[in-house]
Amino acid sequence: MRVGIIGLGLMGGSFALAIRKKYEDLEIVGYDHNDQHTLEALELGLVDRVAEELSEFRDFDLIVLAIPVDAIVATIKQLTFVSPKTTIIDFGSTKKKIVDEVPESIRENVVASHPMTGTEKFGPSAAIENLYRGKVIVFCDIEESGTHQAKLARELFSKLGMKIFYMDASEHDKHAAYISHMPHALSFSLANSVMNQENPKAIIALAGGGFKDMSRIAKSSPNMWGDIFRQNRENVLEAIKSFRKELDFCEELIRKEDWDSLYSWMQKANRLHDIL
Amino acid sequence: MRVGIIGLGLMGGSFALAIRKKYEDLEIVGYDHNDQHTLEALELGLVDRVAEELSEFRDFDLIVLAIPVDAIVATIKQLTFVSPKTTIIDFGSTKKKIVDEVPESIRENVVASHPMTGTEKFGPSAAIENLYRGKVIVFCDIEESGTHQAKLARELFSKLGMKIFYMDASEHDKHAAYISHMPHALSFSLANSVMNQENPKAIIALAGGGFKDMSRIAKSSPNMWGDIFRQNRENVLEAIKSFRKELDFCEELIRKEDWDSLYSWMQKANRLHDIL
Repeated sequence: MRVGIIGLGLMGGSFALAIRKKYEDLEIVGYDHNDQHTLEALELGLVDRVAEELSEFRDFDLIVLAIPVDAIVATIKQLTFVSPKTTIIDFGSTKKKIVDEVPESIRENVVASHPMTGTEKFGPSAAIENLYRGKVIVFCDIEESGTHQAKLARELFSKLGMKIFYMDASEHDKHAAYISHMPHALSFSLANSVMNQENPKAIIALAGGGFKDMSRIAKSSPNMWGDIFRQNRENVLEAIKSFRKELDFCEELIRKEDWDSLYSWMQKANRLHDIL
Repeated sequence: MRVGIIGLGLMGGSFALAIRKKYEDLEIVGYDHNDQHTLEALELGLVDRVAEELSEFRDFDLIVLAIPVDAIVATIKQLTFVSPKTTIIDFGSTKKKIVDEVPESIRENVVASHPMTGTEKFGPSAAIENLYRGKVIVFCDIEESGTHQAKLARELFSKLGMKIFYMDASEHDKHAAYISHMPHALSFSLANSVMNQENPKAIIALAGGGFKDMSRIAKSSPNMWGDIFRQNRENVLEAIKSFRKELDFCEELIRKEDWDSLYSWMQKANRLHDIL
């Protein structure tokens, strides 16, 4: 199988490491605008070689787009030359705008997906082999993908040990706003609220596991997250609104010293973990 | 050394496990209002025996208070019978109210401390031996403690591998509001904002590491956290205000589609991790 990976950062690099273990007779060819990344990816052995031009992927079995969501939209429009058998899988964190912009002529080639995994690190050196194992991947609007492509994607991610969910792209974007995008906005806000204090160092010196966990994703790439907030703007604003309603309620109960209601409200929050 | 541990949950139980490894010739006696907890603590071997009455701790070398902060205030007032050599260490997450309420006659016995560690779990079965190792402990208003007591506390927590910080109780409470108490309010709010959606299960099915990390402390005990929010009310409200200012700013930038400013704002948040 010939696999092209566009974007050799955490997601693309980790994908390369993971499939290498699962397929024999594999050629992995990388592509990245960032020359430093292609060099690093070669040095780390993530890819067998790098492509100079996207057109080199013409007859590839699989092309994976592991780049920020705006770049996915732009790149997928340039892939109209691929063979009918090629499967294109994008890893974008938003899905509606991407599926809307896929050129009609290659719509069946594309499997719009969102692997619900990642770390706060980025670049080829952040790649880890087990990033995908045991995690969820969402396939969106799968009925628009060709039978061959849907099958290949299903087999591939099953082999990687992922749990596959199917969802409408709009529904995905709503859910992703709550489970991922808005929490990133919170983490960035938390980090900045501490950084704005008179002596952030003295505060941060006291950080225990709770703060570290909550501020971890505030380390994420502003580049990538700018794109996500832009592409999923409406849903993110809606999720922030819903979060703020809860925080306002919590604040009001503390202000009014209504400890009984606060107790019930916290108990309700505890119940999340019966589901999680 | 004879050690009394009042409160046999996560903090008290883990403390018992940790000191057992560091001191020979140790008797650890537990005390807990909850009979189930004392039974479990005995079964798990956390303590050698349990006390029926606080007065049994009269001549003990060390008494540790690992109970919710309101209970610390109430209990410490009942410990006026202790010998002049006894060291009383409380593990409360808030400090100002506690130091203000220590009876004058035993003020030198008390070392007001806050170990910056924990997990979202509770009860004796949650106890783990390495909860304290490598973590920060804050001693507040240490100049009010007796020389003997301050020395014992320093030696004890150094042996457990903790990093000791010294701080004014009021300053501690302000910092703790930012680094611990307000983040708990956020985590509870995040959990409830998802639980309030039409289909929380469908959303939570997609949860990756980011959401899991951010909602982990929403599992914490409403009992314990009600007390903390009550005792540190002013500072918690202030920290929530400061957080909300950041979230409002983030929301406004997304609403106005001011992506450049959003980028800079996220970059600033990234810098937290140069300090953390």
